Amino acid sequence: MFLKGSVEEKERYIKEMYRDKCRLSGKNAAVIKKIHGIVNNNRSNPDKLVGVEGIWAAGLLLKYDIIVHALILDVDAITTPDAFQIMESLAKIAEEIHLVSHSTYSKISEVGTSAGIFALAKFPIKKLDMINAANSEVIVVLDGLEIPGNIGTIIRSCDGTNTDAIFICNRKTRITHPKILRSSQGSCFKVPIVEEESATIIKWLQDNNYRIILTDTDAEHFYYDTNYHGKIAIIMGSERYGISKEWYDIPTESVKIPMYGDCDSLNVGIAATLMLYEAAIYRSGDRTKITKNA
Amino acid sequence: MFLKGSVEEKERYIKEMYRDKCRLSGKNAAVIKKIHGIVNNNRSNPDKLVGVEGIWAAGLLLKYDIIVHALILDVDAITTPDAFQIMESLAKIAEEIHLVSHSTYSKISEVGTSAGIFALAKFPIKKLDMINAANSEVIVVLDGLEIPGNIGTIIRSCDGTNTDAIFICNRKTRITHPKILRSSQGSCFKVPIVEEESATIIKWLQDNNYRIILTDTDAEHFYYDTNYHGKIAIIMGSERYGISKEWYDIPTESVKIPMYGDCDSLNVGIAATLMLYEAAIYRSGDRTKITKNA
Repeated sequence: MFLKGSVEEKERYIKEMYRDKCRLSGKNAAVIKKIHGIVNNNRSNPDKLVGVEGIWAAGLLLKYDIIVHALILDVDAITTPDAFQIMESLAKIAEEIHLVSHSTYSKISEVGTSAGIFALAKFPIKKLDMINAANSEVIVVLDGLEIPGNIGTIIRSCDGTNTDAIFICNRKTRITHPKILRSSQGSCFKVPIVEEESATIIKWLQDNNYRIILTDTDAEHFYYDTNYHGKIAIIMGSERYGISKEWYDIPTESVKIPMYGDCDSLNVGIAATLMLYEAAIYRSGDRTKITKNA
Repeated sequence: MFLKGSVEEKERYIKEMYRDKCRLSGKNAAVIKKIHGIVNNNRSNPDKLVGVEGIWAAGLLLKYDIIVHALILDVDAITTPDAFQIMESLAKIAEEIHLVSHSTYSKISEVGTSAGIFALAKFPIKKLDMINAANSEVIVVLDGLEIPGNIGTIIRSCDGTNTDAIFICNRKTRITHPKILRSSQGSCFKVPIVEEESATIIKWLQDNNYRIILTDTDAEHFYYDTNYHGKIAIIMGSERYGISKEWYDIPTESVKIPMYGDCDSLNVGIAATLMLYEAAIYRSGDRTKITKNA
């Protein structure tokens, strides 16, 4: 049985099962060098690949039908039925399988608990024509964001609020940045993410009759003092420069978050989450009955 | 005039003005080594000192009456009237002033725009008996938090919502961690922060008749489905383990944040901000009229 086998027996099992796409790879193999560039975010990444480690995260790749370019296995560390099952499922869909030594594996792994399973997966960026406006009621637009952790946080909050899609324009960081992956806690595989020119996004939103709501410290209304019915697009601007000019040249509504203390703004990830939850709770219809009884 | 003077003239001016506490210090001076340990967070820090750079941040020290242990100046970089004014104000209150070379300064400075002004300041931790329960309506308790960025984010959100105090117990990171400072964006100097044993905090909250509200994914009520009137303490638990057992052994209320999508929780900094804004808006009384008209 696989789990009780020696390293040699485990490797032989996988090589026989996946003969056409499985090989032994050393620390100088092209795939390992490619992974180094990706996890350190210091090389161009035209195929938009990301490194995904461990049983939980690898499970998300299966759940959301993510393309797995390569599966890197340290078979010696695959010791539980869960890990074996995930490994088998990933091996079936992976384009390549690389069996590596524990030493090579430890050079690409960032977490100590990845159970010997590392997948090089394709970050699922969508095109605008893959979004069905009829089914997409709430969209958030990230305009010019720079800090990967903020983008990741917003992706996670979009999952938490079941937001239909994220549109990204004027991006200032690599979409495959490991910190986006980490701070999104895997939600980047679930929430549809589109990258487009802002002009194209604006036209699409207008053609499809979205209300465009800018989050802006200079707005007239507070974010809790508006309604979020119908098809809405919530626009969040860059950490340093706010929302870019082109959004101010079109008909929009705008809302602000109250600052009750001394500081004059919130982090954009925090502000976006407040907006998204406000909209989600509003749309659930559940808040009205409470405040009416208060 | 100072701003137009040579380095030697500038140094002479400061030495004459602050003769009793000013000295030239090199890269091996004790204070510089101490600062290295603090900004890298790799040495014990019993006096709870933090490094604060630049005109804006140094201005906060003055605004909130923070104790300045030492002021480190690269006089050559002090070139604007604003910088000169902040430097003078800090020099008056600083216990020590160290004039350093540009090369020494660049070794302690983390930002390129700090204008030659670096203060070693005392992080303002308060004791429980310095908090006036009669004036403190909303308190947040951070129980066992591990990640400095989360604590800093919550401090900033407490400022944004004018929360009266932050109580910290079972802390798993150094309160002077540079990332707390950075992510709080200076709000750590404004919002009163108390560190105490959880038993002491619980007794104080009970003696002073606070309602204790746990934020807990297993709660019965949603966070928007409760009221936040009167004196309230909002309890946030650790990233990994949640709220510790002792809080479940006393009478409390509990609320949860709805998860509309696939992910099963939010980052604690995000969750705390949602709670704090919900409470602040509730207490402002401004939301009711909107939802009633909706």
